[in-house]
Amino acid sequence: MTTATALPASELVGRFSKPQGFGDATLRSPRADSIELLGGIPDPHVLPVAQLAAATERVLFRSGVPALQYSRTEGIAELRQWIAAREGVAVDRIIITNGGFHGLSLAIQALINPGDLVAVDNPIFPLFLRGLELATTNILPIPVGAAGLDLDALESQLRAGARPKALYTVPDFHNPTQGSLSQADRQRLVDLAAHYGFVLLADNPYRELYFGSAGASHREFNDSENVIHINTFTKTLGPGLRLGWLVVPNWLKSDISALRSRQDSHSSTLVQSIVAEALTSDETLFDATLDKARATYGNRAQILATAIEVETQGGLEVQIPDGGLFLWPRIASDRIDPAKLSESAKSHGVDYQQGAFFPSGPGTDAARHLRLSFGHVSEENLKEGARRIGLAFKEQS
Amino acid sequence: MTTATALPASELVGRFSKPQGFGDATLRSPRADSIELLGGIPDPHVLPVAQLAAATERVLFRSGVPALQYSRTEGIAELRQWIAAREGVAVDRIIITNGGFHGLSLAIQALINPGDLVAVDNPIFPLFLRGLELATTNILPIPVGAAGLDLDALESQLRAGARPKALYTVPDFHNPTQGSLSQADRQRLVDLAAHYGFVLLADNPYRELYFGSAGASHREFNDSENVIHINTFTKTLGPGLRLGWLVVPNWLKSDISALRSRQDSHSSTLVQSIVAEALTSDETLFDATLDKARATYGNRAQILATAIEVETQGGLEVQIPDGGLFLWPRIASDRIDPAKLSESAKSHGVDYQQGAFFPSGPGTDAARHLRLSFGHVSEENLKEGARRIGLAFKEQS
Repeated sequence: MTTATALPASELVGRFSKPQGFGDATLRSPRADSIELLGGIPDPHVLPVAQLAAATERVLFRSGVPALQYSRTEGIAELRQWIAAREGVAVDRIIITNGGFHGLSLAIQALINPGDLVAVDNPIFPLFLRGLELATTNILPIPVGAAGLDLDALESQLRAGARPKALYTVPDFHNPTQGSLSQADRQRLVDLAAHYGFVLLADNPYRELYFGSAGASHREFNDSENVIHINTFTKTLGPGLRLGWLVVPNWLKSDISALRSRQDSHSSTLVQSIVAEALTSDETLFDATLDKARATYGNRAQILATAIEVETQGGLEVQIPDGGLFLWPRIASDRIDPAKLSESAKSHGVDYQQGAFFPSGPGTDAARHLRLSFGHVSEENLKEGARRIGLAFKEQS
Repeated sequence: MTTATALPASELVGRFSKPQGFGDATLRSPRADSIELLGGIPDPHVLPVAQLAAATERVLFRSGVPALQYSRTEGIAELRQWIAAREGVAVDRIIITNGGFHGLSLAIQALINPGDLVAVDNPIFPLFLRGLELATTNILPIPVGAAGLDLDALESQLRAGARPKALYTVPDFHNPTQGSLSQADRQRLVDLAAHYGFVLLADNPYRELYFGSAGASHREFNDSENVIHINTFTKTLGPGLRLGWLVVPNWLKSDISALRSRQDSHSSTLVQSIVAEALTSDETLFDATLDKARATYGNRAQILATAIEVETQGGLEVQIPDGGLFLWPRIASDRIDPAKLSESAKSHGVDYQQGAFFPSGPGTDAARHLRLSFGHVSEENLKEGARRIGLAFKEQS
């Protein structure tokens, strides 16, 4: 090995922030028996594993094995058609991605220039801000309430002259606060985007995971030329596939393709073929998978919420969300220090994301909250995790 | 649908050139029975399809189905370890990618700033120049001869003051000219990189596809802190996997990971798991696959070269390469117009890449060449393709 001649990396990577808080591996608990309530991870028992295996067998033994060959940048036809039919849009507005985060990064790079202002949820899914560093760090935080993004706050910023190039929000089962935009607010948000000339980045990984009846529709997003609707199979068929899709406005289709063709050409033909074969060979599979997921996660949300209230004796105020993979309980007493509570919980063997990791600006009470994930955790471990949080609570009270 | 409010896309995508020549879909032949000698595509019969299918079954029925879950940005441990052992480097210098082109794009974005000078092969694999538009269009073409990159020409440019940030070359079975760098030239190139402070982007998709004995080693690349060695399973296990790897210098590891974590998080855990399981459960599989590939492609190179010489009666001068997936014959007579020859060939039902698509600057005779791929074409179709090229030749003579 020649001695290291450390050359300068690009200015782009030089501008990236160091991981801290959310996503900082040094914060992970070292306890081997720790119960992890950290990430929005689907339960493997809910994923259609056998059907994916059978689909793989079929696509790999197809004549000429197209699943192992190059394919189009935008994605394979069968998968785009299935998605387009479900979204109710023309096939050419569907671009297959390597999952939701990849969709966000393509949207950021195709739209945002250095220094551009981007309006964002406050509190926010923190990894969006990391992805945004591909283009800018200039953000306008907009409060998020019990019904999602606060459109009055947004509109007053716009009226006062703020001119964001884009706005980022999670419209369904917001991460972390769990609210969803009403039908009326979806239309109002899209109208604001058209009026003030910004692009809405509607990030929707949890939309299918409602516990009761279906929520508001997504027609407003898919019908607008001011929206990139970012979707993924991550929470429904498995994060490890790395497979998602964008619904893009017509004016942006070719730019996104041009960008993608310069970065990684196209998503794995094999993964696309497996998923397309599984979904189209049994038209009931996706909805059956969703039904199972909704029942499982709804039940777990209930179990964890109940156990948390009992074990903390009301010290954590919990609202059961209408869907998604997280609880967002609030520490009732101001005398409890959230950072110390987290430390204490770790020492008792339970790990969660501190609310303090989620604000994108001042003015939220996020730091008084905990984000608890429950999707991939067994009922037994949810109860044990709640018991350990209860122990930490007693220690701090 | 609201009326289109075409907003400006980012300056980044606004700078991208339109596809033309190589990669321009409008140039594709409309004839249904056309024989396509266009891309470097492996033969599906050479790919270990049954072993990949069996490996998929095993990884999908593993407890907890880790193949469907999130994994590390750098890649899964089993696959990185297998590759690191084969490359003879530390595991932490291996970064898994979505194929060779993705590796190039990560290298470009992690290293190159707008306006930076990048030395490149002339003639060149044209898609590199398209990927380079992610950062710069300022290139310094360096001639490529029968033994790969002309290092005397490079050194005289460097001595004269040229200061490229990086240099791009295909060291083994160059695309399109088919030469390979000698062992001595590899060391000399790496020494030039260290002396003049540039990074060598050694793009090596064809390295394993030698027809006779193994060529020069890759130790010089893997032992240098001035080299990013770009590799892929595309030509050996299948393009549709979208799976490759980088061997990166120590000083660049964390920057590449930081970039990757902001773009698409990580390569498909499923695809990585399938390939790792196939390669590690049968330690002979990869080499057996390569043996089959080498025999098949060596035979096809010979068949196509012989048929081309016979059918054009020496009008195309062919050298059989030592490996790879292409022939690069030269039109002997200056009276033949290469563009007209290509048009005529298309009308006779055979499609290839014109040499004129490959120069990165003046001073090459690339336009007098044809690039003919043979990897995925049956012997019968290679002979028929040669016959059709022969017909076009007679028409133009």
